[in-house]
Amino acid sequence: MTTDSNTSMLDVRVYYEDTDASGRVYHAAYVRFFERGRTEWLRVRGFDIGALAAGRGIVFAVRGLAIEYLKGAFIDDLLRVETRPTAVRGAVVAFSQRIVRGEETVAEATIRVVTLKDGRVVRIPADLTAQMTATA
Amino acid sequence: MTTDSNTSMLDVRVYYEDTDASGRVYHAAYVRFFERGRTEWLRVRGFDIGALAAGRGIVFAVRGLAIEYLKGAFIDDLLRVETRPTAVRGAVVAFSQRIVRGEETVAEATIRVVTLKDGRVVRIPADLTAQMTATA
Amino acid sequence: MTTDSNTSMLDVRVYYEDTDASGRVYHAAYVRFFERGRTEWLRVRGFDIGALAAGRGIVFAVRGLAIEYLKGAFIDDLLRVETRPTAVRGAVVAFSQRIVRGEETVAEATIRVVTLKDGRVVRIPADLTAQMTATA
Amino acid sequence: MTTDSNTSMLDVRVYYEDTDASGRVYHAAYVRFFERGRTEWLRVRGFDIGALAAGRGIVFAVRGLAIEYLKGAFIDDLLRVETRPTAVRGAVVAFSQRIVRGEETVAEATIRVVTLKDGRVVRIPADLTAQMTATA
Repeated sequence: MTTDSNTSMLDVRVYYEDTDASGRVYHAAYVRFFERGRTEWLRVRGFDIGALAAGRGIVFAVRGLAIEYLKGAFIDDLLRVETRPTAVRGAVVAFSQRIVRGEETVAEATIRVVTLKDGRVVRIPADLTAQMTATA
Repeated sequence: MTTDSNTSMLDVRVYYEDTDASGRVYHAAYVRFFERGRTEWLRVRGFDIGALAAGRGIVFAVRGLAIEYLKGAFIDDLLRVETRPTAVRGAVVAFSQRIVRGEETVAEATIRVVTLKDGRVVRIPADLTAQMTATA
Repeated sequence: MTTDSNTSMLDVRVYYEDTDASGRVYHAAYVRFFERGRTEWLRVRGFDIGALAAGRGIVFAVRGLAIEYLKGAFIDDLLRVETRPTAVRGAVVAFSQRIVRGEETVAEATIRVVTLKDGRVVRIPADLTAQMTATA
Repeated sequence: MTTDSNTSMLDVRVYYEDTDASGRVYHAAYVRFFERGRTEWLRVRGFDIGALAAGRGIVFAVRGLAIEYLKGAFIDDLLRVETRPTAVRGAVVAFSQRIVRGEETVAEATIRVVTLKDGRVVRIPADLTAQMTATA
């Protein structure tokens, strides 16, 4: 992925909870790390996801994801999650994400989330689209 | 703990998700296993926890727990969770639980759950108390 | 996916540990469910993954995955994980997997694992390939 | 618990991964948060737990824990984990820990870890005891 002014960064420390008996970070742990990255991307843009859910019944749910695991990661590693939206259209926000350790890319992902209101897919409300696409 | 006619048993297989880089089962995984055991104890007694939450706003929340870890557990182990209530009183259900592997006791726990209705602590409704204390 | 004689099935119960505050199963939980399915597919074919790791230094690590989430899943749901290999070649085993609830498909995945020996990618040893491709 | 010069602090953000369908933080998530706190306490004192495990075969394993859950926690909460050792003796390090949100105490724990070398309980090596009890 490329990074631009709309890319957010989040540092993530690897704890025992993230590893498995192979001695490496468990593959599902990256899925959690990528979500932390998207959550921080939203926070930087002013979203309060708790209030959105409680006040307007709006949640973003993952509809599809693809991850390539390029390097192992290990206990105590300090990883960085990079998050960049690639499309905001209809009900869908698409993201390109990457986990890096220093200069190395550890994993790459493309992820599509859909907007749910009271459990049903809806177009992203216009104010939220504006909030997502405004220059940070 | 002792077992009696009100004890339920649940088999749990250890997968990679449950282990950590020490090569053993991660200590928080047992907390999940114990909850699976309590959920199955409720199911055996006719509780539908999804319907209770959706229909009556009632959930059981853990208020306190104490666990002793006696043996390590490892990938692919087949563990058994034993669950027995020790008190049903006011808002609280207390459980004695144990995880065994064959003849060995791997971990023991005492756990208190409280009854929440719409997020607030309430006395356990009488019909639920009856359901919990009826002979299975 | 299609199912055939090489497809294995595993039932998975949804517990609170698998859900999130949206009220649905958390998207990373499916990644764990899919792995349980692959582990059971291996077990049915006679693999002892604990002994493989301890005795021969061999582990299977996820190299890539793609998941489509088609329906929500909820607390107490009984899901079935279907697992079928689509290729065993070089260092890689590719799987097609599906999670169903009764007649509904909840999620679909394609997953590639690579064979590591002492942490390095190796061709799958011939005896293991034979074990994977033998008629179950 | 009281805090003193040997208390370390770690901020933890609540993500969807930490919540469950009751809308609150899942009770086992606190167990992970407490461990992050102990890991940071060790890091502050100069421990490299990855190197300890790889180079000397030493890991710290939880032997017992007791947690009291006092308040619910919710998506997006910023929690602080406070960690203070109460005893370093023989093979055991005992900790008093607390999770707070602003002025509120959300959960309290006492936790005992034992020192394992190559999987067996050993007295804490003298250099590590010194490292733990030195003024930070």
